[in-house]
Amino acid sequence: MHPPVRLAVNGATGRMGRALLELLRDDSRFELKAVITSAHARQINTPVFTGDDAGTLRYSSAWPAPGVLDAVIDFSGSAGLAAALEYCETNGVALVTGTTGLDASLTQRLDNAHQRIPLLRAANFSLGVAVLTRLLREAATALRDWDLEIVEAHHGRKEDAPSGTALALGKAAADARGTTLEHDAVYVREGLTGPRPAGTIGFAVVRGGDIVGEHQALLIGQGERVELGHRATDRSIFARGAIEAAYWLAGKPAGNYDLDAMLAERRAK
Amino acid sequence: MHPPVRLAVNGATGRMGRALLELLRDDSRFELKAVITSAHARQINTPVFTGDDAGTLRYSSAWPAPGVLDAVIDFSGSAGLAAALEYCETNGVALVTGTTGLDASLTQRLDNAHQRIPLLRAANFSLGVAVLTRLLREAATALRDWDLEIVEAHHGRKEDAPSGTALALGKAAADARGTTLEHDAVYVREGLTGPRPAGTIGFAVVRGGDIVGEHQALLIGQGERVELGHRATDRSIFARGAIEAAYWLAGKPAGNYDLDAMLAERRAK
Amino acid sequence: MHPPVRLAVNGATGRMGRALLELLRDDSRFELKAVITSAHARQINTPVFTGDDAGTLRYSSAWPAPGVLDAVIDFSGSAGLAAALEYCETNGVALVTGTTGLDASLTQRLDNAHQRIPLLRAANFSLGVAVLTRLLREAATALRDWDLEIVEAHHGRKEDAPSGTALALGKAAADARGTTLEHDAVYVREGLTGPRPAGTIGFAVVRGGDIVGEHQALLIGQGERVELGHRATDRSIFARGAIEAAYWLAGKPAGNYDLDAMLAERRAK
Amino acid sequence: MHPPVRLAVNGATGRMGRALLELLRDDSRFELKAVITSAHARQINTPVFTGDDAGTLRYSSAWPAPGVLDAVIDFSGSAGLAAALEYCETNGVALVTGTTGLDASLTQRLDNAHQRIPLLRAANFSLGVAVLTRLLREAATALRDWDLEIVEAHHGRKEDAPSGTALALGKAAADARGTTLEHDAVYVREGLTGPRPAGTIGFAVVRGGDIVGEHQALLIGQGERVELGHRATDRSIFARGAIEAAYWLAGKPAGNYDLDAMLAERRAK
Repeated sequence: MHPPVRLAVNGATGRMGRALLELLRDDSRFELKAVITSAHARQINTPVFTGDDAGTLRYSSAWPAPGVLDAVIDFSGSAGLAAALEYCETNGVALVTGTTGLDASLTQRLDNAHQRIPLLRAANFSLGVAVLTRLLREAATALRDWDLEIVEAHHGRKEDAPSGTALALGKAAADARGTTLEHDAVYVREGLTGPRPAGTIGFAVVRGGDIVGEHQALLIGQGERVELGHRATDRSIFARGAIEAAYWLAGKPAGNYDLDAMLAERRAK
Repeated sequence: MHPPVRLAVNGATGRMGRALLELLRDDSRFELKAVITSAHARQINTPVFTGDDAGTLRYSSAWPAPGVLDAVIDFSGSAGLAAALEYCETNGVALVTGTTGLDASLTQRLDNAHQRIPLLRAANFSLGVAVLTRLLREAATALRDWDLEIVEAHHGRKEDAPSGTALALGKAAADARGTTLEHDAVYVREGLTGPRPAGTIGFAVVRGGDIVGEHQALLIGQGERVELGHRATDRSIFARGAIEAAYWLAGKPAGNYDLDAMLAERRAK
Repeated sequence: MHPPVRLAVNGATGRMGRALLELLRDDSRFELKAVITSAHARQINTPVFTGDDAGTLRYSSAWPAPGVLDAVIDFSGSAGLAAALEYCETNGVALVTGTTGLDASLTQRLDNAHQRIPLLRAANFSLGVAVLTRLLREAATALRDWDLEIVEAHHGRKEDAPSGTALALGKAAADARGTTLEHDAVYVREGLTGPRPAGTIGFAVVRGGDIVGEHQALLIGQGERVELGHRATDRSIFARGAIEAAYWLAGKPAGNYDLDAMLAERRAK
Repeated sequence: MHPPVRLAVNGATGRMGRALLELLRDDSRFELKAVITSAHARQINTPVFTGDDAGTLRYSSAWPAPGVLDAVIDFSGSAGLAAALEYCETNGVALVTGTTGLDASLTQRLDNAHQRIPLLRAANFSLGVAVLTRLLREAATALRDWDLEIVEAHHGRKEDAPSGTALALGKAAADARGTTLEHDAVYVREGLTGPRPAGTIGFAVVRGGDIVGEHQALLIGQGERVELGHRATDRSIFARGAIEAAYWLAGKPAGNYDLDAMLAERRAK
């Protein structure tokens, strides 16, 4: 047994932050050392956990002293991520981040961070989606001349389409086939469309109710097809994936890592 | 046992005509009396069936004498249907037709035909689709405030979208909810769509390979959903449905009939 | 607007009771008058809700005075249901119950209760399952000679198979076809099974993860099939269905009611 | 362009043989040199193709002279395969075979054949199933602790369950997880099953209508799942896969090959 990973959660009062804390409370692989949020959050200085086993951990805007942490999980914002990055680089701490919407300068800093720390970035921390992406890449190559379609379904409040994950799946397949979504994606089919152009990747979108997120890639040949799908029924999977990633990343040498590499290492065991 | 239904197939050399003949050859509920096609078809006067039990039936452009037929199945074109209609009305013969693309005047004649003959028109003769349509109508009313989405998949050569059957399903549901597709259909979702407007009916389209035809209606609520689907794997089902309809329609009083009424009568038995 | 339905929840500290209370807290169609549980429950006399808008409602083992309630929702046990039944019959109050595992004498009392009160019993309060059951009954009749298969999936902790809902779906279809599960169900297929006997109803069972509950009825013909399915992703739907039922049942004349009748009334609107 | 592969079909009058001939007639990558069947078949010495472009090819029970063939596709029986094997080994010809039900001695001979000829054996020649098997192997390892279930559906005339392909999928996954079907398969769930044992692989079977063959592997975690499926809608895919295999195998060095290796080579291009 190796000693618990000493962890900080950054962006702790957001939706992902709260989901992380709920899972980490009972996860003995970790020692939660810092729970960080914006200095303006009303939770600052209040206890993170309540109840009999609440402990003394409190929300804070300050980063801990050097040497205290092995890893940081960050779902914050630009300012939060910038602070996390500085702390991690200074102290050689592993960083797992799912923060999006970064400006060019922060993206640049993140792109260089692998020289100093182990870094894992992802847009979707579901392990199932990571596996699906890898499988789709293989299937798109092995069945190179089959028609590829991607169908996704999300709740009715979602404001964009297709989902980022659907686009990422399409991109992975397009890469594997040596083309791009810019060149081959078809997002709209209405009226007199004409026949399906060979080599295109079609997207279809379903919206309704409170569907957490479902993605299906169809590889359609003559007389047969392969269907690769993922269904999320609970948002906690994204927190769960980030936690697995942090546990795996802590102690690795500096470098860029992704969920796929984590899964590949598992497979090799 | 009632005596066999005396039948003519009109439009006999088209794709549907050939499928009908193949099924009718071995169907003892019918006596095939005439196999009619255009006077210019190269099959005119050649035997319809070959082999040991081929009989003497030949392709013809002429309609039989009065009193010879109980029913006509028509998948021809405007001219063919006009001739069939005249024959049926003159002789009081039941007419099943799936011919589409009629002009206003022929449509008008067809609209009046129920005064003289039993008539059954359909755009899709699959019994499964007829049942699905009826079920969707019920579900759309019972779950009136659930989000409704219709997903369809067809082969890559199909040149329009959504399919006529998908639109017919949407129309049935819209009717049942007291609205219209003109008002509430959403055919395109791309980019910043905003949240799903309440009460809309979304369509999603998949194209690829040689998929015969699949339709799914999703009624999506909070925490649950109902999925009503139909898969066709063989085009012969459309011929099969038309044959069932002709068998059922022969001998009925003059009037307009549809597949739904046929199924309702079965249920009542 | 009619005045709020005055409601009691019986069995309030069980899993369903808690789900009901969470939903009822913010449902202005109801006035929650009593929250009843066993006299031995540790929650007795503690406040039901906490927070700013908690009110003064407390868990109790005593039923309110006559004239206070319009309806009771009961998910308790035999003793709890017996008490609820007595109160409702004495005071003419509508009763919605999902309590199962009743002995013969209590079942008997329940069977007679419709003479005095409006009563609605169900094994599964999902509205979607109620709709699915009704649709399956119709489809099983309309497609009487198609093969019927029922597939269900539940979490890995479930200890029986097929699920009660799968069996209820099968029973509804068997009834509609004039047969019984005793006569026609096939629960096991392993090894040399021989061909599928005509008219049977096959069950297939999937277990894994934390699947809340999924049911699919397949009506399989030649060249086509109809697929009728339900997916539950959140247990709260069962509470939601019971609440809808109570709202609908309050004020009805004495009699036996079911979810199907509720949905039929909605359809008729 | 390399010159056409000179090919023989062995077992040419069986269902697979006929499907092969129909596809090969128009496939310019091949030159069909011999069409072999049992000496007792009524087709012996009759023309293989009819029509304007029928050519002079006739059914025969004799193998051609040395040096005439590059590859043989065999779907015959034990005697037919034995003859094909002898011919191929003597003449250094590639052999693709899907013949099953071999006795120990023929199996032994086949096991040794890779020393002299390129040999490709498969129980299912669908390329889609080959890809699915490979993907499942990866997914079963990457998601090692997720529950694995395999659902298959076939026509009502099928006499065994689960299908050979479902078992082969299960075996591939079990291998990948370091276990066996003997140890971990669950084929029956009825009545009081108790909770799902960790690490097991469950099978569920659907039978009905004329379903060609469908397989789905479900990897079910907490809050998410991955679904890997294959649908066959036309039996010709098995012939198609064997033809692709023969084209790929012709000219390879002696050795054992499988569809997976063929697909891997495609992916590498």
